[in-house]
Amino acid sequence: KINGDRLWESLMEMAKVGPGIAGGNNRQTLTDEDAEGRALFQKWCEDAGCTMGLDQMGNMFARREGTDPDALPVYVGSHLDTQPTGGKYDGVLGVLAGLELIRSLNDMGIKTKHPIVATNFTNEEGTRYAPAMLSSGVFAGIHTQDWAYDRVDAEGKTFGDELKRIGWRGEEEVGARKMHAFFELHIEQGPILEAEGKDIGVVTHGQGLSWTEVTITGKDAHTGSTPMPMRRNAGLAMARVLEAVDEIAWSHAPSAVGAAGHIDVYPNSRNVIPGKVVFTVDFRSPELEVIEDMELRLREEGKEIVEALDMQIEFEKVGGFDPVKFDETCVTAVRNAAERLGYSHLDIISGAGHDACWINRVAPTAMIMCPCVDGLSHNEAEEISKDWAEAGGNVLFHAVVETAEI
Amino acid sequence: KINGDRLWESLMEMAKVGPGIAGGNNRQTLTDEDAEGRALFQKWCEDAGCTMGLDQMGNMFARREGTDPDALPVYVGSHLDTQPTGGKYDGVLGVLAGLELIRSLNDMGIKTKHPIVATNFTNEEGTRYAPAMLSSGVFAGIHTQDWAYDRVDAEGKTFGDELKRIGWRGEEEVGARKMHAFFELHIEQGPILEAEGKDIGVVTHGQGLSWTEVTITGKDAHTGSTPMPMRRNAGLAMARVLEAVDEIAWSHAPSAVGAAGHIDVYPNSRNVIPGKVVFTVDFRSPELEVIEDMELRLREEGKEIVEALDMQIEFEKVGGFDPVKFDETCVTAVRNAAERLGYSHLDIISGAGHDACWINRVAPTAMIMCPCVDGLSHNEAEEISKDWAEAGGNVLFHAVVETAEI
Ligand SMILES: NC(=O)NCCC(=O)O
Ligand SMILES: NC(=O)NCCC(=O)O
Repeated sequence: KINGDRLWESLMEMAKVGPGIAGGNNRQTLTDEDAEGRALFQKWCEDAGCTMGLDQMGNMFARREGTDPDALPVYVGSHLDTQPTGGKYDGVLGVLAGLELIRSLNDMGIKTKHPIVATNFTNEEGTRYAPAMLSSGVFAGIHTQDWAYDRVDAEGKTFGDELKRIGWRGEEEVGARKMHAFFELHIEQGPILEAEGKDIGVVTHGQGLSWTEVTITGKDAHTGSTPMPMRRNAGLAMARVLEAVDEIAWSHAPSAVGAAGHIDVYPNSRNVIPGKVVFTVDFRSPELEVIEDMELRLREEGKEIVEALDMQIEFEKVGGFDPVKFDETCVTAVRNAAERLGYSHLDIISGAGHDACWINRVAPTAMIMCPCVDGLSHNEAEEISKDWAEAGGNVLFHAVVETAEI
Repeated sequence: KINGDRLWESLMEMAKVGPGIAGGNNRQTLTDEDAEGRALFQKWCEDAGCTMGLDQMGNMFARREGTDPDALPVYVGSHLDTQPTGGKYDGVLGVLAGLELIRSLNDMGIKTKHPIVATNFTNEEGTRYAPAMLSSGVFAGIHTQDWAYDRVDAEGKTFGDELKRIGWRGEEEVGARKMHAFFELHIEQGPILEAEGKDIGVVTHGQGLSWTEVTITGKDAHTGSTPMPMRRNAGLAMARVLEAVDEIAWSHAPSAVGAAGHIDVYPNSRNVIPGKVVFTVDFRSPELEVIEDMELRLREEGKEIVEALDMQIEFEKVGGFDPVKFDETCVTAVRNAAERLGYSHLDIISGAGHDACWINRVAPTAMIMCPCVDGLSHNEAEEISKDWAEAGGNVLFHAVVETAEI
């Protein structure tokens, strides 16, 4: 078993880097705080005897050697970046449980045949730079590196420039590493495990996602002196499209969800009728046809709504992945570990996207989930218990050690 | 008659200060660009022989002496600040037509009994600091100066600090000046004069305004892993309230308008269900009862809509003024001037708020309007013809000279 106290202490130490305003974290990707968190992780890994690899997307790979020089490593990990008002565990738990696993192996003096690599993927959250899971996506060959470097944030700064600025652009070719397997421990970010009273979620599948950026163009005009019939109020058109997004998602419930988290209004002045709004619609489902139907209806109904108001609408797909089925052998290793350790467990589908969803394309992959209070995540109040973290860490330890072979 | 070419040239010169991105201006109040525009106006006024007064709200008063030392001055003016994506004429025309009137009197060697003061009021637009017409409001005793100084912009900078920073906080007590009369020339910002083919609007009344800042509190949560029934999507609640705002305004059409120009969504991340939205509803009508009814219905219907979604809503009135009736004698002076000069004219109600609406409380006041293309304003594409500007300037000249007495 791992050292649950040490894992928890490391989580609390990391949470001091880029604190939020309400007890959580704001350690967004490629900020100075991200750089500080990376340095702390690197120090811990080196203290644990690992050597750190860094690729051209800033992905970090802390390697503990194996006994067989020819054996491919078993990778474990997740991400250290957070939402602007994010929690202390989303991503971080998976990275630091990877480190804890190595520390525990050291304590126990256990050598594995396959090397073990604790990993931190860059920009999983996708807030500052869409899409989410950008760097695991480049690793898995989904996006090109040049395209990733050209992503811009709200201030117009590119991913490539910011990665260089914070000093974490490595030399290693992205995706050159071959993996024996990949395991990611993550908080559920949903309410199911807690509600069912289960310690461990054995993640068999992941929902698919579609992000569509919608731009509605009306006409800036004075809110006082412009008669109602002359208005082209892009804010009103948006309101109707947001209502349609909600209806479309509900029409497929419970196997679909939908919302717009990002909304920008221009020129955003109290006495100017909005001439332009840009917002991103997030649709998800475990079924590909459902996602495709929702995307299509957004485009059709959105066009109808907006054109009826004599305005223009444009759609751009800015992120997405198909539903995922994880590797049978790896999933079984997770389920067996939970069983062996006597934890209650449940097969579940991940509602969120994860680096594991992309890595699954290039290596046998599985995920382990632990509950989080009220299913709340992407909120500074995100909370888990030390026992939950420890149980997740123990299952990860057993599944990884079994796969890496003693 | 005034020198229309010179007026136009000055308009074009001023438009070079704080250029926009699409042919208009971004010279928001208390920015460096505002300071630069003020310095240019001061230079022009001093070149025309005026002495400049500056009060503690940064209001500028360029005085041309009269022949009677005991006579109160006739004030003319408007504002030099613009919307973030504003036009070249909104406000600026009224200030520079005041200057042109003085220049023309100089050219003609005409002395008036009453002094004439060309005025620039600070922060008329109200975008950076709500409410609009802030400094004419303090001048008229509507707001206290301390309250005005404490207004904060989106970055948390106070009005008082920014006024000092740009170097335009004067010593003079605000509102200490007594006015014989006040005249403001302004573009219509609406479509009526152009549609009716009239050169001049004789402004008899002004619409009242109500700005209500609405805050809806839901719960930040993950857009992927939060089931639809658990969501408290503040963005969806806002969409429904925006629809109600539109319905409320239409229910009183054509004598009311309504929209939300300002909308902020928190944390504004693609994969976070909005936990909070803040937006400002702008309702206007020439009838006080209509404004009061719209305000009340916003509060009642807003509460109903948002509570039905199990979220909270709060309302704060952040700006407002009652419908205005301008001074009979001053209005007659404007109508007579248009008549005498042979311009076609129409009595109209101002759809927008203006400094004249507040000054009307402390001095006999009237406004002159000239048409603008397609009624478009608060848009960089705002446009007027040189002939329209000149006609407005001529009517202003005649009304003011008649009132200031030769
Ligand atoms: N786990 C997580 O929050 N990932 C971000 C990508 C997503 O929105 O699902
Ligand atoms: N004239 C003008 O645009 N004033 C700003 C105040 C308002 O919104 O009416």
